[in-house]
Amino acid sequence: MRMVDVIEKKRNGQALSKEEINFFIDGYTKGDIPDYQASALLMAVYFQGMTAEETALLTQAMVDSGETIDLSSIKGHKVDKHSTGGVGDKISFITGPIVASVGVPVAKMSGRGLGHTGGTIDKLESVEGFNVEITKEEFIENVNKYKLAVAGQTGNLAPADKKLYSLRDVTATVDSIPLIAGSIMSKKLASGADSIVLDVKTGSGAFMKTLEESEALAREMVQIGNNLGRKTIAVISDMNQPLGYEIGNANEIKEAAEVLKGKRVDDLRHLALELAAHMTVLAEVFDTYEEAYAKLEENVDNGKAFEAFRTFIHAQGGNTEMIDDLSLLPKAAFDIEVPAANSGYVNSIDAASVGIAAMHLGAGRATKEDQIDFGVGISLQKKIGDYVEKGEPLVILHSQEQNPQASIAKIKEAYSVTEEKPEKPTLIYKVIK
Amino acid sequence: MRMVDVIEKKRNGQALSKEEINFFIDGYTKGDIPDYQASALLMAVYFQGMTAEETALLTQAMVDSGETIDLSSIKGHKVDKHSTGGVGDKISFITGPIVASVGVPVAKMSGRGLGHTGGTIDKLESVEGFNVEITKEEFIENVNKYKLAVAGQTGNLAPADKKLYSLRDVTATVDSIPLIAGSIMSKKLASGADSIVLDVKTGSGAFMKTLEESEALAREMVQIGNNLGRKTIAVISDMNQPLGYEIGNANEIKEAAEVLKGKRVDDLRHLALELAAHMTVLAEVFDTYEEAYAKLEENVDNGKAFEAFRTFIHAQGGNTEMIDDLSLLPKAAFDIEVPAANSGYVNSIDAASVGIAAMHLGAGRATKEDQIDFGVGISLQKKIGDYVEKGEPLVILHSQEQNPQASIAKIKEAYSVTEEKPEKPTLIYKVIK
Repeated sequence: MRMVDVIEKKRNGQALSKEEINFFIDGYTKGDIPDYQASALLMAVYFQGMTAEETALLTQAMVDSGETIDLSSIKGHKVDKHSTGGVGDKISFITGPIVASVGVPVAKMSGRGLGHTGGTIDKLESVEGFNVEITKEEFIENVNKYKLAVAGQTGNLAPADKKLYSLRDVTATVDSIPLIAGSIMSKKLASGADSIVLDVKTGSGAFMKTLEESEALAREMVQIGNNLGRKTIAVISDMNQPLGYEIGNANEIKEAAEVLKGKRVDDLRHLALELAAHMTVLAEVFDTYEEAYAKLEENVDNGKAFEAFRTFIHAQGGNTEMIDDLSLLPKAAFDIEVPAANSGYVNSIDAASVGIAAMHLGAGRATKEDQIDFGVGISLQKKIGDYVEKGEPLVILHSQEQNPQASIAKIKEAYSVTEEKPEKPTLIYKVIK
Repeated sequence: MRMVDVIEKKRNGQALSKEEINFFIDGYTKGDIPDYQASALLMAVYFQGMTAEETALLTQAMVDSGETIDLSSIKGHKVDKHSTGGVGDKISFITGPIVASVGVPVAKMSGRGLGHTGGTIDKLESVEGFNVEITKEEFIENVNKYKLAVAGQTGNLAPADKKLYSLRDVTATVDSIPLIAGSIMSKKLASGADSIVLDVKTGSGAFMKTLEESEALAREMVQIGNNLGRKTIAVISDMNQPLGYEIGNANEIKEAAEVLKGKRVDDLRHLALELAAHMTVLAEVFDTYEEAYAKLEENVDNGKAFEAFRTFIHAQGGNTEMIDDLSLLPKAAFDIEVPAANSGYVNSIDAASVGIAAMHLGAGRATKEDQIDFGVGISLQKKIGDYVEKGEPLVILHSQEQNPQASIAKIKEAYSVTEEKPEKPTLIYKVIK
């Protein structure tokens, strides 16, 4: 088989066979197929797309390119949740304990990665003593005992995806739905869960800006999951503004804990319950979504969900005092208000700009070497549809500097305040099964 | 400027600016832009095309990537002729002397290259003593004195094109009309002629199989030439069967010389006169095509064209006895007839298969190291529309082996003989100015 013929076939709009896809992924992972042929194929895929079957084959080949995590020694049906990413997304810290509170095991492996804020494990480390460097045995024991554990990702999962993603990034071939879907799903499938609930973000702050694109991506991922034997559901949720009110590390843990303690932060509570309901139905703990939602909401209100969170933090060495008294979590030196320049209704909040503002404060990593500052972050004071008086704060920046000009400028850029009252964005657009 | 942004712009269907095209070609030639970004851009160009302006800019950038040949010390208007390539194409050896016979300078630089037969300079070397390794001064002196000289190509012409062509070959991005047009024209423009006549082949034996594609390529090349200040004309001519009757090296020289001596090999004589007429009109020696054609035909019939050929061969050290008595040219050991399997009319002759048959005999080069055998080749005995009796020869193979099975098989594959008499293919389809 010659790679040039594989490229030509895709270029001409034909579907690649299993042998051709495996030839490409194996050869590329080993370095037998050079980057310049891979990038030509990727661009051809950008234009010609892939069938559902091809995408499933590609995903499976990427899974097979490396190690897979064996979760079979964990009792029960393992459900994973994955978000396509957005600003202020602390949903995992809420759904995890909610799902665990009804006995469904949540075994989360997570990397550190780059971003406006830290990743899942960075945020958890803002709780003093919390340790993600646990052995595989401890991890499995914890899930079996407490139904919830989070570990730093080890092992070489889907190395083909890693290599291809780096190449796509510099060859303008990121924006291809089958390639995005295959990339996400290969990592999820290698992580070993039985079922997967996807939170596909849509809107100005999401990778997919339109509902149409988000739905296409969601359908593609659901199809891959189901084709490869994992029950998969996708919820399409809003990212036209940050999720909840807090962006950062410690303050995202704080907001998640508040929701678990019963605070009605509407978008967070509802989205977390929605996702958790689908997870528990997939795990066959409940028969219907309605039943699941009602029972899970009960566990939030009666404190069981918070208890599951507290137990999990304790089991991994975290200082639970910080969870009981959230004011003990790390804090930045200064709280700086960014006031509204005029009175009116918040018409839009560009989530990406808010993310960059958080990054400038030190909440995230631009390169692997960057240190995360747990205490810095942003507390939104106004969200879309809220009225604000001129001079009233739009956000409060938690900063180690007295005058974080770059972040202030970004926040001013992010908010648009107009005379007319806009409609509140829909939170959940669609569920794709 | 970032290459990834240039790729994305083209991918999205936008036209690239002069700065972007120069950034790409300069960077790629120097090695600052890696192959994997170049191949992604090439595939994006395959799908999105290029405007006439972009193609001209690309061509100019490729010309500027290396040396250009300065022909300014040659008196008169220099016209170059270029064929997109086919089997049995010895037109250059006929047009060159015809054009030279009316005083228009023909300064031909040629490479060796790979192919079913040798290139222009290999074929000329089948005349004993003929020397293409002449200095630049001798070359220019010869053109000024005799109006015709051929030299082996030296210098680093359009290195960007060379590098890109190698990459296109392995990334399925050869078949893109703007890229093909830019590649051909960059080499022509770097070669320094004032005007260019293109012979664009069309049909089963050509790179472009349909008239539509051939015309698109012709228009693109004419546009590039004119946009970059060279008067350019393209003639679209037939390649549904080999051109003339002889394929090889010595026997192509022989057939060309016969035409120059007045032999009426219809397709060769007419196509050569057609191209020569356009060349001399571009050189402003004649006012109209009709006048040019008539005067040039006169010079074939009165022996002036052959005299120009003889002078040229002599000036470069060639043994003119071989030209005067063509039976002295190199010959192979065996002449082997390939007979028709049934009686009927020749319906089609796959030129590519005839080319491969010649290659198997040793007429061409598959790799740079291969030695060409000047004496081997193929003499067609029947062309499309001819009647053949069962057992009559379709071709005669000139071979060093007694039983060249691979070539015989290829010839049998190439010919189709049917009961119904087909129409003769049109020789010249269109002229694009």
